[in-house]
Amino acid sequence: QIYSQVVANMAQIQAVKTTVSHVISQTLPLAGKVVTITAGPTREALDPVRYISNHSSGKMGFALAEAALSAGATVHLIAGPVQLQAPEGVTHYGVQSAEQMLEQSLALVAQTDIFIAAAAVADYRMAEVAEQKMKKAQGETDLVLRLVQNPDIVATIARHPERPFTVGFAAETQAVEAYAADKLQRKNLDMIIANDVSRTDIGFNSDQNAVTVLWRSHNGVQRHQPEQASKQALASQLINCIVEQFEANKAI
Amino acid sequence: QIYSQVVANMAQIQAVKTTVSHVISQTLPLAGKVVTITAGPTREALDPVRYISNHSSGKMGFALAEAALSAGATVHLIAGPVQLQAPEGVTHYGVQSAEQMLEQSLALVAQTDIFIAAAAVADYRMAEVAEQKMKKAQGETDLVLRLVQNPDIVATIARHPERPFTVGFAAETQAVEAYAADKLQRKNLDMIIANDVSRTDIGFNSDQNAVTVLWRSHNGVQRHQPEQASKQALASQLINCIVEQFEANKAI
Repeated sequence: QIYSQVVANMAQIQAVKTTVSHVISQTLPLAGKVVTITAGPTREALDPVRYISNHSSGKMGFALAEAALSAGATVHLIAGPVQLQAPEGVTHYGVQSAEQMLEQSLALVAQTDIFIAAAAVADYRMAEVAEQKMKKAQGETDLVLRLVQNPDIVATIARHPERPFTVGFAAETQAVEAYAADKLQRKNLDMIIANDVSRTDIGFNSDQNAVTVLWRSHNGVQRHQPEQASKQALASQLINCIVEQFEANKAI
Repeated sequence: QIYSQVVANMAQIQAVKTTVSHVISQTLPLAGKVVTITAGPTREALDPVRYISNHSSGKMGFALAEAALSAGATVHLIAGPVQLQAPEGVTHYGVQSAEQMLEQSLALVAQTDIFIAAAAVADYRMAEVAEQKMKKAQGETDLVLRLVQNPDIVATIARHPERPFTVGFAAETQAVEAYAADKLQRKNLDMIIANDVSRTDIGFNSDQNAVTVLWRSHNGVQRHQPEQASKQALASQLINCIVEQFEANKAI
């Protein structure tokens, strides 16, 4: 009799717990929303063994995925080759090239409320990928690689008929805010996060980051500069900032 | 009195141990020899954020370092960017570009008895590295990269006045043995280890490897094909093979 009493109490406690966590998750700012994030570099094959890539570690995108998850969102993380584990509860899609990343982004666009393009996508890929390993020709000392532009993933999403709230990144080494403001307008983004990758203390591969956030409003481009912080702490601030403008846009 | 007896015994045991390990280490096949190994890919900068690289994991070079250490050698490991820890007891030099790898190899050449070039060195680098991040020009959709040949590290070492016993690698996707035999002669190597990287079950990034070893003798090019094995087991076989030819060359 005591045993059945204990079981009944435990069942009650479990029911209360479930209700509480359900209520909490519904009051989280991104409850019921789908956030899709791209992260890391892409790799563009030159031939079966060589590729072009960049120094993105994926840390910022993965930190944003974690922060969006904590804010109650359903999170899709489309990542190039990185040395990171996706946070538990996040759906991870591993890709190599920009074309693969675009394809996965488009497959998710209709269900996505907020799209954050944190990946450092290669701007160019080989016009033709060599099927065999390219050989040095005897006597020839130079090699000319003909590259073509990759699709612009964030601009493609921002032009899509079912476009979500679209956030871009601008990693620059000079005139950082000017380039970012131009990119915001030209690519029809809702928000852009600009960082100066010429500084070695922050940015690519670093655990710290300092950024400027720009967005469009009735009164022109607005800006906000969070304090330099760890990528984790910064990611929470950025998600707050994104939620605020996402809500403001809906209110219009 | 018992205490001092115990201390005396322990001191004796320690002395015997030291002598035994000294004798063992002197009887190891590479005792007193210096082996320098290059490993991993190199990265050639296009601009401050982009680079050309390749799919080498560095596993084969690191396994060879471990095997050379076990064979009693003093081991220097010059490695490009990889996600591996150097074995304890090995001196590790981290480099990025082919030029940095060559510089470190030359700094060690005079003291090196056996040089094993296991790195997948980028054949080409940018003719001029852009100081700022390259921007897409409005309206331009193509990009032409002008590359120049990198120094050939293994050939430079094999031509050096103080040349060590020099072992190269040939990672090919077709006509594997023919390319390797040509490379052996043309670069003046003592030995070359050929593997077929078009097979996805072995080679780059795989934990398994299957290779063919070619070397020059009075009777022309000799060959030996160890059985497919883990990179660790194969590394021990390769070090045995290298020791055998290193000794044979000295005997001439």
